[in-house]
Amino acid sequence: MTTTLQGIRVIDFSRILAGPFCTMMLADLGAEVIKIERPGKGDDSRAYGPFVNGESLYFISVNRGKKSVVLNLKNPKAMDFLLRLIDTADVLVENFKPGVMDHLGLSYETLSKRNPRLIYCSCSGYGHTGPHALKPAYDLIIQGITGMMSITGPDPEHPSKVGMSIADVDTGVFAAIGCLAALYQREKIGRGQQVDIAMFDILMAILENAATRTLNTGEVPQAIGNHHHAASPFASFKASDGIFNIAAGNDLLFEKLATALGIPELAKDPRFLTNRLRVQNWPALEDCINAVTSQKPVDHWCRYLMDSGVPTGPINNMSQALEHPQVKGRNIVTTIHHPTAGDVRCIASAVRLSDNEIQYRPSPILGADTEHYLQEILACSEKEASRMVQDKDLE
Amino acid sequence: MTTTLQGIRVIDFSRILAGPFCTMMLADLGAEVIKIERPGKGDDSRAYGPFVNGESLYFISVNRGKKSVVLNLKNPKAMDFLLRLIDTADVLVENFKPGVMDHLGLSYETLSKRNPRLIYCSCSGYGHTGPHALKPAYDLIIQGITGMMSITGPDPEHPSKVGMSIADVDTGVFAAIGCLAALYQREKIGRGQQVDIAMFDILMAILENAATRTLNTGEVPQAIGNHHHAASPFASFKASDGIFNIAAGNDLLFEKLATALGIPELAKDPRFLTNRLRVQNWPALEDCINAVTSQKPVDHWCRYLMDSGVPTGPINNMSQALEHPQVKGRNIVTTIHHPTAGDVRCIASAVRLSDNEIQYRPSPILGADTEHYLQEILACSEKEASRMVQDKDLE
Repeated sequence: MTTTLQGIRVIDFSRILAGPFCTMMLADLGAEVIKIERPGKGDDSRAYGPFVNGESLYFISVNRGKKSVVLNLKNPKAMDFLLRLIDTADVLVENFKPGVMDHLGLSYETLSKRNPRLIYCSCSGYGHTGPHALKPAYDLIIQGITGMMSITGPDPEHPSKVGMSIADVDTGVFAAIGCLAALYQREKIGRGQQVDIAMFDILMAILENAATRTLNTGEVPQAIGNHHHAASPFASFKASDGIFNIAAGNDLLFEKLATALGIPELAKDPRFLTNRLRVQNWPALEDCINAVTSQKPVDHWCRYLMDSGVPTGPINNMSQALEHPQVKGRNIVTTIHHPTAGDVRCIASAVRLSDNEIQYRPSPILGADTEHYLQEILACSEKEASRMVQDKDLE
Repeated sequence: MTTTLQGIRVIDFSRILAGPFCTMMLADLGAEVIKIERPGKGDDSRAYGPFVNGESLYFISVNRGKKSVVLNLKNPKAMDFLLRLIDTADVLVENFKPGVMDHLGLSYETLSKRNPRLIYCSCSGYGHTGPHALKPAYDLIIQGITGMMSITGPDPEHPSKVGMSIADVDTGVFAAIGCLAALYQREKIGRGQQVDIAMFDILMAILENAATRTLNTGEVPQAIGNHHHAASPFASFKASDGIFNIAAGNDLLFEKLATALGIPELAKDPRFLTNRLRVQNWPALEDCINAVTSQKPVDHWCRYLMDSGVPTGPINNMSQALEHPQVKGRNIVTTIHHPTAGDVRCIASAVRLSDNEIQYRPSPILGADTEHYLQEILACSEKEASRMVQDKDLE
């Protein structure tokens, strides 16, 4: 099987999470991703724990399948080499603060003149336009500013951050969309273009339903815990040993639930006859259901209610989640051999194509591929490339 | 300016949120998306409030730019028409339970024989393979099962659902990636392929960092509220009138923060000298910072600390979020005129391409385009198409 992005070369200036998540997705799809790293430390995230045999798991997990070239971007010789390398590329990804690439002499204008087929994808906090373009942004700050935290959490008094770095990760995912869209378009028009992806835009876009309600009705959604503002019962309930989820937000499922719980009269109770009534009378309904479910453990309810045709599920921790039968059934965990860290287990790509394979390769040791690309671009011997690296010509 | 997907025809069987979010992204990029809806009610989400002039805001917000064709898939005449329509298509998107399309006679095998260039994208809860493929899944259930809820919330006792339907929405986003990847690949190999996108896979993929830690160290992350497990201070803090976020997770920013708060000695305190120490001694550090920040309001700190170079931000509600200067600066709100609902305000596409425009068009009235496509596919007159619709030939 072939890969989707076979033959596509990506020059990757991105660091930490958002940009690297994008280029990991491109590498999974078969692209040749060349990570440009600074001498000595490389990507900051190489220093983030926990470590396996001295290698950062954080770095390993979002940089699989990439090459590493070490360059000092203030060294003219390194810049000359870099520009010639970019001349051979299809895509460039960066997540510096707006303006940094321009100061380095690597603006879209400069590079697209040399290589008109280049797709130039920038990821940033607020995007490259607008009054806040130059403000520093982190995942937490963007989750707060966009309203994401205001609708997450058990109640309005405890606005909660989404547990993973949703603004960073989804920015990487949207950047991959931008790159693929521009690659497809390049097949039609023969030239590349600029892609401007912002964490702020992304969270507003995925908050679409909440934002549209506020924009058009003035209604301001709040954190309401684990129940649903418009479907009921669709919530977490108490078991004797914890809580679990039931999603029975239509009349048919509610009737099945009431019967399975041994309280069929609930489905005929005038307070709970329709979804609208159940939403209105939610606190009473919650009490009725909790009174029954709190008598037996989570495991019992998840098995028994699912067998009764009611969508039900536990609230797994990460360890329990990874034991779910579908993890094995879908090969969601894949093992990659890393030259230093040894066998490392990673989460597989969620992009499943019937006729294109996903490529899983280890993350690079810092500078592992500098020599290789020196030989290619400068058309020099292995010996000469090796000497240049040893003498730190490009550092 | 042209659009990215000009000339691409998408047949859309998807309903509610995950599939429709995907096809909205394709429509934004310029594709012609033809939504196939059942007679009478159409997409279930047309009945979800709130409503504007009788039109569902929920439906409007994720179905902009699409056409609507009403067909009864059990009517042989409708099926004949539908198959001929699919023969003209580039992409098909569906989010039925696995097996439903096969039962309708619309399997990938059947359709790809007729139209080998067709890209066939399925979105489902657990994917089309594995032991749980046929289990019902909803966003809430998937958030619980994958561990997403276990790491979100103020403390381990309050695992919290992400406030928006992250499993649904991100499944739509990943489905768009699958469609774009397959479209790009089709340019190379001349034929389509099958795309299998699962909510379960997606949440595992975006939980990558937490999952990788658990897989390789056995460490099980928990909900820890709004601070960070590996960077400090990177958290929500108390003001006199609420809470707000500070992201100052390196030594330089911490020193700036301590100075700005008027407690420069904090940066020299042996408990807080390095990020590692600040993470270890987080409760003490939190108390020291809260003692100062709790004396003045959120607005003061957000302005003053940002001016001091410390990344800081409020926890906005949706209404405040939409007033952020960047919303106007980036044209994040766009107004679309809907024939019945009037002017509706929507969140703009977050995919920003320099040389391709985004198309914003209203969501369709149920069946608005049936006549148009009858004329095209059956090569019949306007009058005949109109008669067929009036006589409900295809219902």
